[in-house]
Amino acid sequence: MTDTPLRFGLIGTGRIGRVHAANVAADPGALLAWVADPVVSAARDVAAQFGGSATENSRDVIDPERIDAVIIASPTPTHVDLIEAAVDAGIPVLCEKPIDLDIARVDRLRDRVASAGVPVALGFNRRFDPSFASARARVVAGEIGPLEQLTIVSRDPSAPPASYIAVSGGIFRDMTIHDFDMARFFAPDIVEVSAIGTTTFDAGAREHDDFDTAITTMRTAGGALITVINSRHSATGYDQRVEAFGAKGMLQVGNMPIDLVRASTAAFAASSAPFEPFFLTRYAAAYAAELAEFIALARGDASTSPSFEDGRAALVLADAARRSAAERRVVPVRFD
Amino acid sequence: MTDTPLRFGLIGTGRIGRVHAANVAADPGALLAWVADPVVSAARDVAAQFGGSATENSRDVIDPERIDAVIIASPTPTHVDLIEAAVDAGIPVLCEKPIDLDIARVDRLRDRVASAGVPVALGFNRRFDPSFASARARVVAGEIGPLEQLTIVSRDPSAPPASYIAVSGGIFRDMTIHDFDMARFFAPDIVEVSAIGTTTFDAGAREHDDFDTAITTMRTAGGALITVINSRHSATGYDQRVEAFGAKGMLQVGNMPIDLVRASTAAFAASSAPFEPFFLTRYAAAYAAELAEFIALARGDASTSPSFEDGRAALVLADAARRSAAERRVVPVRFD
Amino acid sequence: MTDTPLRFGLIGTGRIGRVHAANVAADPGALLAWVADPVVSAARDVAAQFGGSATENSRDVIDPERIDAVIIASPTPTHVDLIEAAVDAGIPVLCEKPIDLDIARVDRLRDRVASAGVPVALGFNRRFDPSFASARARVVAGEIGPLEQLTIVSRDPSAPPASYIAVSGGIFRDMTIHDFDMARFFAPDIVEVSAIGTTTFDAGAREHDDFDTAITTMRTAGGALITVINSRHSATGYDQRVEAFGAKGMLQVGNMPIDLVRASTAAFAASSAPFEPFFLTRYAAAYAAELAEFIALARGDASTSPSFEDGRAALVLADAARRSAAERRVVPVRFD
Amino acid sequence: MTDTPLRFGLIGTGRIGRVHAANVAADPGALLAWVADPVVSAARDVAAQFGGSATENSRDVIDPERIDAVIIASPTPTHVDLIEAAVDAGIPVLCEKPIDLDIARVDRLRDRVASAGVPVALGFNRRFDPSFASARARVVAGEIGPLEQLTIVSRDPSAPPASYIAVSGGIFRDMTIHDFDMARFFAPDIVEVSAIGTTTFDAGAREHDDFDTAITTMRTAGGALITVINSRHSATGYDQRVEAFGAKGMLQVGNMPIDLVRASTAAFAASSAPFEPFFLTRYAAAYAAELAEFIALARGDASTSPSFEDGRAALVLADAARRSAAERRVVPVRFD
Repeated sequence: MTDTPLRFGLIGTGRIGRVHAANVAADPGALLAWVADPVVSAARDVAAQFGGSATENSRDVIDPERIDAVIIASPTPTHVDLIEAAVDAGIPVLCEKPIDLDIARVDRLRDRVASAGVPVALGFNRRFDPSFASARARVVAGEIGPLEQLTIVSRDPSAPPASYIAVSGGIFRDMTIHDFDMARFFAPDIVEVSAIGTTTFDAGAREHDDFDTAITTMRTAGGALITVINSRHSATGYDQRVEAFGAKGMLQVGNMPIDLVRASTAAFAASSAPFEPFFLTRYAAAYAAELAEFIALARGDASTSPSFEDGRAALVLADAARRSAAERRVVPVRFD
Repeated sequence: MTDTPLRFGLIGTGRIGRVHAANVAADPGALLAWVADPVVSAARDVAAQFGGSATENSRDVIDPERIDAVIIASPTPTHVDLIEAAVDAGIPVLCEKPIDLDIARVDRLRDRVASAGVPVALGFNRRFDPSFASARARVVAGEIGPLEQLTIVSRDPSAPPASYIAVSGGIFRDMTIHDFDMARFFAPDIVEVSAIGTTTFDAGAREHDDFDTAITTMRTAGGALITVINSRHSATGYDQRVEAFGAKGMLQVGNMPIDLVRASTAAFAASSAPFEPFFLTRYAAAYAAELAEFIALARGDASTSPSFEDGRAALVLADAARRSAAERRVVPVRFD
Repeated sequence: MTDTPLRFGLIGTGRIGRVHAANVAADPGALLAWVADPVVSAARDVAAQFGGSATENSRDVIDPERIDAVIIASPTPTHVDLIEAAVDAGIPVLCEKPIDLDIARVDRLRDRVASAGVPVALGFNRRFDPSFASARARVVAGEIGPLEQLTIVSRDPSAPPASYIAVSGGIFRDMTIHDFDMARFFAPDIVEVSAIGTTTFDAGAREHDDFDTAITTMRTAGGALITVINSRHSATGYDQRVEAFGAKGMLQVGNMPIDLVRASTAAFAASSAPFEPFFLTRYAAAYAAELAEFIALARGDASTSPSFEDGRAALVLADAARRSAAERRVVPVRFD
Repeated sequence: MTDTPLRFGLIGTGRIGRVHAANVAADPGALLAWVADPVVSAARDVAAQFGGSATENSRDVIDPERIDAVIIASPTPTHVDLIEAAVDAGIPVLCEKPIDLDIARVDRLRDRVASAGVPVALGFNRRFDPSFASARARVVAGEIGPLEQLTIVSRDPSAPPASYIAVSGGIFRDMTIHDFDMARFFAPDIVEVSAIGTTTFDAGAREHDDFDTAITTMRTAGGALITVINSRHSATGYDQRVEAFGAKGMLQVGNMPIDLVRASTAAFAASSAPFEPFFLTRYAAAYAAELAEFIALARGDASTSPSFEDGRAALVLADAARRSAAERRVVPVRFD
């Protein structure tokens, strides 16, 4: 089977969907066979550029005669049903995060996924970023000793439109969800969550009773403390940092510079360009590595892809953070 | 009066006391007149090196015939009585932090200090560090817009002995106290505090039911969120950083390097020396500037020295952090 | 013509040839039509992967019926004849540097190229590196005032084999040639050259009477001073830096890090990974931009591609450096 | 003798003289006994602040009854006679650089110094800078393997007045002289010198036929190549860097930042303050360490202070650079 390229179905042709389409087309082990989008012209456009047939109906795609693996990049409310259909059809799934905003829906799907024996991977792309992956591997290898503190700074370049905020599920389930997965990437054994949030600059967040600024802290069973610092805007670009600290030292992942130029004048020294502002560029290597890992997973090779359970765990943490911010207290969490 | 050097009394000749003695001796506007320490040989030693008479009795020093200003660098339990004596004698005071571990004792002194009209400054040296002072001035000047997030990393090189932990009042009143003042330096209008702590490496902390690792978050009336990340140890040296973030950008204060050398080999690039590990060296310029400011204060010139009220406010925050960590909830604070 | 992809011929399928083949295949404005290599299996391999027909005879490719543009990536001694054949056939050329090791051969071709009206571009890829291009554009825009000093550090990760040294034309024509072009990119009006070289570590260089370490200085008509610092090895990776200095400040281009992780331990702080060691990775974006520029040039759009004259000028500087190092004196240069 | 403070004489009370006076006063092993300056009010001013008696006649000072060591910080033309007088009187000397602008005068003094057995140290303060000293010690310890390339960037904040240029001896003997000594600090076995200079911005340099911009290259007997990049101005402050390169890696000494603050905005990231612009601040630690070393030397303890021979060698290199720039050729040098 290694010699035949995997036939991929793609459901959803937004920005992320197109990134996956390009990566499938560029990978010698895969080809794009089917593309689905309710806006069929968008599906046709992607198929014309990267290969495959187009349809407006995602159910046309989920067919083992037609595809060997499926990428779900459609809107969040469609994820659960599509995962279920793929699992029923025995087709490995790579689904964009979050699985769903409603943990109850996720839990109803949970046993089905667990018993099906079909790989379901979650699109937590940051795990595949070479720098975050390297830092985590070095922590696991003991370079800094047992992890004592993990600090994640995660700030988007600018707040999304109010219409997006309205259906986003709130900052913790929409934005911090990536940081919850990153936290678990370094420290899976989280046992409690505290969070506070404020709204100081974004009218959309205020309108929909959401936060534009938030701090989440977590404690692990082993006593490590984790801090996530979020903002919905960042003048200097996409601010994505991690600092892992232990008895022997620390490992810090910094921001991606736009270029390698530094300017010095009478006013300042060593001024760099702003951070890369666009998440698809910042994480371009991560998306490609994520796909390669999913291909290995779909082929049955051993894999570390973030799983359905990882997707659920991030949602559990997000819900705990919401509750903590509302109830102004520490909230214990369990993943079992 | 500007032309006559201020006669200083120094009470306490530990490490900090000696730093103050040297700075008094080096300042053309001041001279060391009296030094007190129960270990009179230590007092004599300091007086021999930096000037003045020595005594074992601090009350010999607090005498307007003998001194124009007093520095209290003796153990914390002595502070309240010495401040009171100095205020009663009309002698301006620079007192090391904290005022006391017991807010009730502080509050009993509070009205006396407020009504006396005698300057009482608290030794929050970090406010005088050129880098922290510059960053704060730039925030006040609006360079990053209104402050939205303040992140303070504050890690000591190594944990103190268990015997010190036993009388320290706990990490929040002993170590975080500096960070509480730094937080108020940037954002005075704090309204609530949350804190969590763990003990993962220090037997002394465990023995005395203290934390060796802690995260404190605060919210201001204006909606800014503050995070303080503490550890009692840091392999790379004294880790003292601040990041102020707003709509227009951010200002970061980094660690002080030991030297300006960077090494690159087959294994790594641009490796610097560890951070300056010794707090008296890291903050040498700050201690000198603190004294200069106190001299101006004692002379009646306008001054921004951290005040008795600042010292009390830091203690209020520390007590709130202790309560939050114990009760696992957000604790509101008021400074009035 | 803009709508029809340009049909490309590729002559030579070594490392650089394959990079060009991949970039042609990835560019929607181009397709690979013919691939030539005396080792025809290599040509077939590249054609199978990136498109087109394969041949062992480069003259089969240079045919306006078959291709619209040609990339010459074959060994240096073949360049002059192939350029001439392409120019005679009216086919735009992108030729890898150097044109030839013998300036007399280059000069014999010169008039032919100048009068033909067919674009001939030289593969000085570094001009297209986003960081070098940005720094140069900012210098041209006056950000640092008139250029006063340009310092280029250019060190390869490791020395080539002695067999390569034997036919390389020596360090100035083989390695510094890129730096001569970079110098002219920032400062075209060079009027004199001085160079010194030594051989301290590379047996191959010693065997073939070449240098492994060299410093070249140049002066421009406007009085700017240029320094090129070369070494055939660099333990930390591919060391490629430029510093442009003027009255208003300086612009520095630093090395490309492998990742964004920095480590701090008891021994050091902020240690980065070594520099990216592989030139094809370091300059991947530059090769892609170079091809895009050449496509625009071949289509007749305005272009700044380094030209045949730029290729000749770099060789003039290299020859002057050789003479200076041999005669131990400053050597004047002219490009007319 | 270790217990009695050394009595110092100071000749010359300009900026450097005052720095030495302050360091003598601050060192428990030394005291300022006599101060000489033709402007006797300046001598009195320094004596009033740092101790000692004042005189307008430097010969009053050079008296073993009055002093144990002398610092010569008077104008360059006075150095030779004062050194000779001190040596004749058996008084150890710390003399500011250069010994003289005329190598012939230096050579006439040479034997006298060599045979006298009285320590004569030259004020090459940069050797005592903690960062340069550390980098050199690490090179000597073999951290980068044998030195292959040494690159020194040395740019003053701004050009001196034309009147100073007139008597300075030219950029190589006035400014590069420090870099020649730094080169010899890392690589004493220099055998040849090349230099080029231009005048692009400074009217004073043009008026007095001097350069404002210069590049000097040197070769050592061992095959190492040294580059010195000089400018009489630098918008970003005092630009003082060294890069030592060898087979195992490189050690770089960077500029001293004014503070530890970095700013990031929509326009740039990680912008630092300009470099410390004032040489007395940049090298404050170096001047103190230089004096401490000289005190040890004067007491007869083993010492590495730059010697009269080091001062002469730097002048030999400066003269060779002048000749090279004039004759446009490589100039061999010998120090014996």
